[in-house]
Amino acid sequence: MAITLRLALFLVYRRGMELRYLTPLTASEQISQGLDQAKPMALADRVRFSELDILRHVNNKAYLGWFETARVSYFDRLCAKHFNGLPAPRSVLRNANVHYRREMVLDEPYITTARVIAFRNTSYVMEQQIWSGGLRATLEAVMVLRSPDGSAGYPLPETLKQQFIDIDGARPDQD
Amino acid sequence: MAITLRLALFLVYRRGMELRYLTPLTASEQISQGLDQAKPMALADRVRFSELDILRHVNNKAYLGWFETARVSYFDRLCAKHFNGLPAPRSVLRNANVHYRREMVLDEPYITTARVIAFRNTSYVMEQQIWSGGLRATLEAVMVLRSPDGSAGYPLPETLKQQFIDIDGARPDQD
Amino acid sequence: MAITLRLALFLVYRRGMELRYLTPLTASEQISQGLDQAKPMALADRVRFSELDILRHVNNKAYLGWFETARVSYFDRLCAKHFNGLPAPRSVLRNANVHYRREMVLDEPYITTARVIAFRNTSYVMEQQIWSGGLRATLEAVMVLRSPDGSAGYPLPETLKQQFIDIDGARPDQD
Amino acid sequence: MAITLRLALFLVYRRGMELRYLTPLTASEQISQGLDQAKPMALADRVRFSELDILRHVNNKAYLGWFETARVSYFDRLCAKHFNGLPAPRSVLRNANVHYRREMVLDEPYITTARVIAFRNTSYVMEQQIWSGGLRATLEAVMVLRSPDGSAGYPLPETLKQQFIDIDGARPDQD
Repeated sequence: MAITLRLALFLVYRRGMELRYLTPLTASEQISQGLDQAKPMALADRVRFSELDILRHVNNKAYLGWFETARVSYFDRLCAKHFNGLPAPRSVLRNANVHYRREMVLDEPYITTARVIAFRNTSYVMEQQIWSGGLRATLEAVMVLRSPDGSAGYPLPETLKQQFIDIDGARPDQD
Repeated sequence: MAITLRLALFLVYRRGMELRYLTPLTASEQISQGLDQAKPMALADRVRFSELDILRHVNNKAYLGWFETARVSYFDRLCAKHFNGLPAPRSVLRNANVHYRREMVLDEPYITTARVIAFRNTSYVMEQQIWSGGLRATLEAVMVLRSPDGSAGYPLPETLKQQFIDIDGARPDQD
Repeated sequence: MAITLRLALFLVYRRGMELRYLTPLTASEQISQGLDQAKPMALADRVRFSELDILRHVNNKAYLGWFETARVSYFDRLCAKHFNGLPAPRSVLRNANVHYRREMVLDEPYITTARVIAFRNTSYVMEQQIWSGGLRATLEAVMVLRSPDGSAGYPLPETLKQQFIDIDGARPDQD
Repeated sequence: MAITLRLALFLVYRRGMELRYLTPLTASEQISQGLDQAKPMALADRVRFSELDILRHVNNKAYLGWFETARVSYFDRLCAKHFNGLPAPRSVLRNANVHYRREMVLDEPYITTARVIAFRNTSYVMEQQIWSGGLRATLEAVMVLRSPDGSAGYPLPETLKQQFIDIDGARPDQD
């Protein structure tokens, strides 16, 4: 964890705060909502009718959409600026390992998080979580950066690698 | 329009208020967000990545999900109580007339509304709208109530009919 | 109806033919499957688990996807060639009027059709149907052609207008 | 591999056969379509417009729907009969590990497969694949059987366990 976020954990006070939906939550909001630690990206949302299946619980596919939404926000807010003046990379999901811990039902509010835990030269590993009164589902996603036409690997900018270390507490891996 | 809502229009003051997502908006919030009049149900939401298609705008099908979400909230909050002690009706969409006015793009906030404009003995007509700096799409939906097994029509409770008149300003139609 | 299609109706013989999925059906296949008349585009498909909602029937939104699939096939197979050497138009759905006649359940096979019934200078009206042992749902869709950047109307090529008349039996409307 | 399926591999002859969509493929059809070996369940389908995202390739979430369709068919055709006279179990996806090997585009035909590779007393591991001129994506899914109300584990019937061994060539694991 980066120092800025760690400090926030000490400063936070728990109160019955209303949940702010669809807007990145601050570190203190995340902690007061019961997350184990603040993440670089956390978005609150709510289960919709169209996400339920005949078992009246959230269908497995819906979680993938929630994770995708937070991943896109993470990239737009935290990564895109590191590609200023460079061709826009093609971000490709190579592997997705989803673990479903407890089913969810209509209207439940939840928080989706995103944090990079490791990276190599042209790829990174993102850990994503769904929180709602405890941890409900997790995703470990391997993301690969490709050139705009998809034909070649695209090295992560050095400033982005450093940010992964500083803000996300990510681990540089050998290629 | 019902008297309660009409009064609200005079009391409201416009200010740069932050949008509350995924929670029914008050009459004054609706007006300050630019709606033409307050509706019985209005929910703010935001365009997600998964709702875009290859044209990079919101796909036509996504709007149907937005309308559905507001319709389910409308029913749960305003109608369900009128069926206490009665078998739960099966609400069936018989006709949906969607008009698309202006395309929408990633991350746009918008408000979905629901209001009943007319009813008969076993059906009602709902007017739904998408607002985002102006009117972006509308739906006129004919909803039919059926018995739990779907085999027969299910008459609207009289108290619900009266509420359609009082709160929504709906028009009773001849069967 | 165009002459070619009308003739086919007389030549067809009904037999217990297996349904060919996901490939445009011939006029005789359409008639033997119970359609009222052959359409320029008809595709057989089958209800999937993910298209059901908590009522265990096909959700209203799913039909929009079926209609879209047939509309895209119609455009790719019958219209695209009329734009050879021209900039690719942006096809925009302006109005969609869906009528749901009878609910559908898991694994049901069905046929989605597409046919242009009228056109103007930069738009056309498409009639779409879902057949499965009778007519299950219909869509009347107003499609508008726009320039690639969406800023201006895009006139239908004259050869395409003629084809709408010859093959679809469409009606030219005044602008 | 079960003996019945293994034998089929020797009997099959390769020819330019048309792909039968949405109906379980025979062992010989699977081999002639390029699969490495016949699976207990294999369904051919085709990429739809609605499965594409702004990158104009199939979105990651769509594969989950394809896998789900084949999994439901597998259960309905091969497993359901083993629960005759018993309460219907609740099949819950506990873990999904998806590997994306090569992106897919509009109208591509593909084959989705399902095969159980291991089982315990109340769960089994299913291997699923997407084939289209080679292997395009894989899923390893851990499925758990629960009582109808979801409160307790539900032991696999012995006849089903034996079928997993005989037809799928599955491995019994220690609990």
